[in-house]
Amino acid sequence: MLFDRDAVPTVMTPEQEEVIHRQALRILAEIGTDVLHDGARRLLAAAGADVQGERVRWNPDLVMAQVAKAPRTFTLHARNPAHSVEVGGGTPLWMNVGGPPFASDLDRGRREGSLEAHDELVKMTHAADVLNCVQTGAVEAVELPVSTRHMDMEYSTIRHSDLPYTTYGTSGPKARDGIRMAEIVHGGSLDGRTALLGIVNSNSPLVWDFRMSDALIAWAEANQAIVVTPFLLAGATAPVSVSGGIAQQVAEALSGVALAQIVRPGVPCLYGSFFTVTDMRTGAPAFGTPESVFGVLAGGQMARRYGLPYRGGGALASSNAVDAQAAAESQMMLWATMLAGTDVVLHAAGWLEGGLTASYEKFALDVELLEQFRGQMAGIGFSEEELAFDALAQVGPGGLFLSSPHTRAHFKEWLTMSPLFHTADFTTWQAAGAEDTSVVANRRWKQLLASYEDPGIDPAVDEELRAYIERRKAEPPEPED
Amino acid sequence: MLFDRDAVPTVMTPEQEEVIHRQALRILAEIGTDVLHDGARRLLAAAGADVQGERVRWNPDLVMAQVAKAPRTFTLHARNPAHSVEVGGGTPLWMNVGGPPFASDLDRGRREGSLEAHDELVKMTHAADVLNCVQTGAVEAVELPVSTRHMDMEYSTIRHSDLPYTTYGTSGPKARDGIRMAEIVHGGSLDGRTALLGIVNSNSPLVWDFRMSDALIAWAEANQAIVVTPFLLAGATAPVSVSGGIAQQVAEALSGVALAQIVRPGVPCLYGSFFTVTDMRTGAPAFGTPESVFGVLAGGQMARRYGLPYRGGGALASSNAVDAQAAAESQMMLWATMLAGTDVVLHAAGWLEGGLTASYEKFALDVELLEQFRGQMAGIGFSEEELAFDALAQVGPGGLFLSSPHTRAHFKEWLTMSPLFHTADFTTWQAAGAEDTSVVANRRWKQLLASYEDPGIDPAVDEELRAYIERRKAEPPEPED
Repeated sequence: MLFDRDAVPTVMTPEQEEVIHRQALRILAEIGTDVLHDGARRLLAAAGADVQGERVRWNPDLVMAQVAKAPRTFTLHARNPAHSVEVGGGTPLWMNVGGPPFASDLDRGRREGSLEAHDELVKMTHAADVLNCVQTGAVEAVELPVSTRHMDMEYSTIRHSDLPYTTYGTSGPKARDGIRMAEIVHGGSLDGRTALLGIVNSNSPLVWDFRMSDALIAWAEANQAIVVTPFLLAGATAPVSVSGGIAQQVAEALSGVALAQIVRPGVPCLYGSFFTVTDMRTGAPAFGTPESVFGVLAGGQMARRYGLPYRGGGALASSNAVDAQAAAESQMMLWATMLAGTDVVLHAAGWLEGGLTASYEKFALDVELLEQFRGQMAGIGFSEEELAFDALAQVGPGGLFLSSPHTRAHFKEWLTMSPLFHTADFTTWQAAGAEDTSVVANRRWKQLLASYEDPGIDPAVDEELRAYIERRKAEPPEPED
Repeated sequence: MLFDRDAVPTVMTPEQEEVIHRQALRILAEIGTDVLHDGARRLLAAAGADVQGERVRWNPDLVMAQVAKAPRTFTLHARNPAHSVEVGGGTPLWMNVGGPPFASDLDRGRREGSLEAHDELVKMTHAADVLNCVQTGAVEAVELPVSTRHMDMEYSTIRHSDLPYTTYGTSGPKARDGIRMAEIVHGGSLDGRTALLGIVNSNSPLVWDFRMSDALIAWAEANQAIVVTPFLLAGATAPVSVSGGIAQQVAEALSGVALAQIVRPGVPCLYGSFFTVTDMRTGAPAFGTPESVFGVLAGGQMARRYGLPYRGGGALASSNAVDAQAAAESQMMLWATMLAGTDVVLHAAGWLEGGLTASYEKFALDVELLEQFRGQMAGIGFSEEELAFDALAQVGPGGLFLSSPHTRAHFKEWLTMSPLFHTADFTTWQAAGAEDTSVVANRRWKQLLASYEDPGIDPAVDEELRAYIERRKAEPPEPED
């Protein structure tokens, strides 16, 4: 059935898949990766990797034996147990954009990110029924000091939502702050439970830098889930070809997963895919292109091969406005995301300008698209009442269903009526101001934000979190490199 | 592989598909259809159908025996043999919108259709490399008399393009004019060759009216391809449920195909699907909804069951502007269209306002989306050069591919660089006028129109076509009912 993980359309034949697999292992064995972290290199050498200076060559058996230790599914625990999710179990995680330095909406324009905007985006994510996870760093709280703002954003996520979340950890010290805060949230100790998704990007091509390695090790030690995502732009950080890029992606992803498994066998790891092309006219990534669609689907195919849950895709767009380009790009990416059987979708709502802006109107647009995909995932109903033989017999040839009892009884439940997309005729639409989608979306996100209900937080936990952040802010910053 | 007809994701289990099939046959046997055409009823009675007044009840064996006579594939002949296509053979027909009474573009605004606009849209279709068929009636030539304008539009199609085309036949006399003109184009006689796609819509629910029956019979007698498309809006012309609507669609489509086969066994017929929901707030159809996606995919699944080529989907949108809604709706429909293995895609470029307007900017947008799908259909390349092991080894860990010889040698050939979608950063984009997609699309369709090359036409054929039209215009109009 549509979007079933077991029946997704493949983009590589079994032979092609095997070619990618073999080339990835050859890359790791013959070219290797640089690992700029002493501790990681020591662990790898002890596990049997060939370490010469900073260069690590990974033998295929080592890599595959380690990758095999990663679980196919795992539970991601939310502070509200009702929101915990089995990752890889068939319910994809859909969440807000993460990482943009800018925020924008039609009222306040494009501006630097702030903690206020972060709070708003967390609240909108929590309020959107179709989103079931929060990505910390929805927008950068640019006004706050770099060395400590990760905790302010993490607190924003924890305080305003009780959904599962990704942690903001771009270095070992930051990752450890996130773990400590999660421990506080979960009663003082995680006790081996996985409550965080940590994102690790290789420094492509083929470099594991100190910060990311350090974060990876911290999360692995704490049994927190690690999303290993090579950030590949064909023609910049990867070869200018899809198959070459995917082979590199496999090499980088598997080496990251293997390192995590060496640190702690069985720690949940995801195969992450972020692959698209560089627009050579601008040097910027282009989304929604055939190559980016292939990237999402091929990544999903390889993740299934390795028995790893899959992170990929999202509502990615290059456009600078919530216009036709933005929607076309996002839909292209979202269809690929859905078809790939993606388990974890970062950036499912609000991504604009190639990820540089968290757009509130784009957020409303994306939520609408996700609602439609959710409707598709539900499948076609086949109850007697839906099959409607009697209704058709009653209306009969030449009749009209508009006012039939069957229609009146069921249309509210069965028919999609989008709050964002309209079907008004041109004259009516024009008379009402000829609003384009971004204007309607402006009203929608305000409705969404207004509908937010505070899930509350245990005052003792809240106090402990604040005290932790306060204490850490008073301490001298830890070196991250 | 992605978009392979043999590996498309299904939306109904085999059991559900069987339920639809059985219910469709039950609808035809127990409720039946009204057939408002004496000649058709006589043919049906002679073939064994139960005819009582205008009501025809079709026994399942009759229907299935007739449907089995339709070919799985057939050649649609273009006046330029290089453009002839095997329909059902794996190359989908993509064509312009058809039927809108209005045309619109940013320069001239929204206005009534005209023959001039029809000419322009035919030229743009011919010029767009990704389109391989012309739909006659790209826009209604509203300024011309209703009784004869079909010939002016048909001439516009024939004169300005040598691609295969759909004929404008909404009644028997109009269908016969189209056939006669095709005969002239093909040297005086079609000689059994199929050179036209004729579109037949049932008058849903369950009515075959005189005009459509008469056109169907005319095309069948001449061995021209018949696209049998029930026009179903859940809650208006069909039950307010997907499975009920699809069962009705099968009943109407199969009865139309069966009638055509009774007229001429073996005449090419397509299973046509046009199913979406009524937006109960406006009474208008809504496109891109989950129901409409199901309609396209379920229709494709049933068409494959019956061994019929499939017409469905298109770049359908309800929006009144080339905005995010328009792109989101069109992409939703196009993905379903592609995944359903659709053989014939009417309305693949230019459809706006629920089909009431042929939009030039939407045309440019849709052509861009189709180009992307064409790129996806081409699949991932696996040459040694694309696998790029040596290139990666040369760049090495921490290197950059931007200026590598491999990138410089291949980026122009391998990387998608969209003429419509940009990746400029926000500041650059704003300084250049902050153009939204519709403004860029305005330039694009003008480029497309400017790039049009007249394929020419044999002067003798041209003269004969003009003489035919002139003579027919001088005759009193034939009764169509």
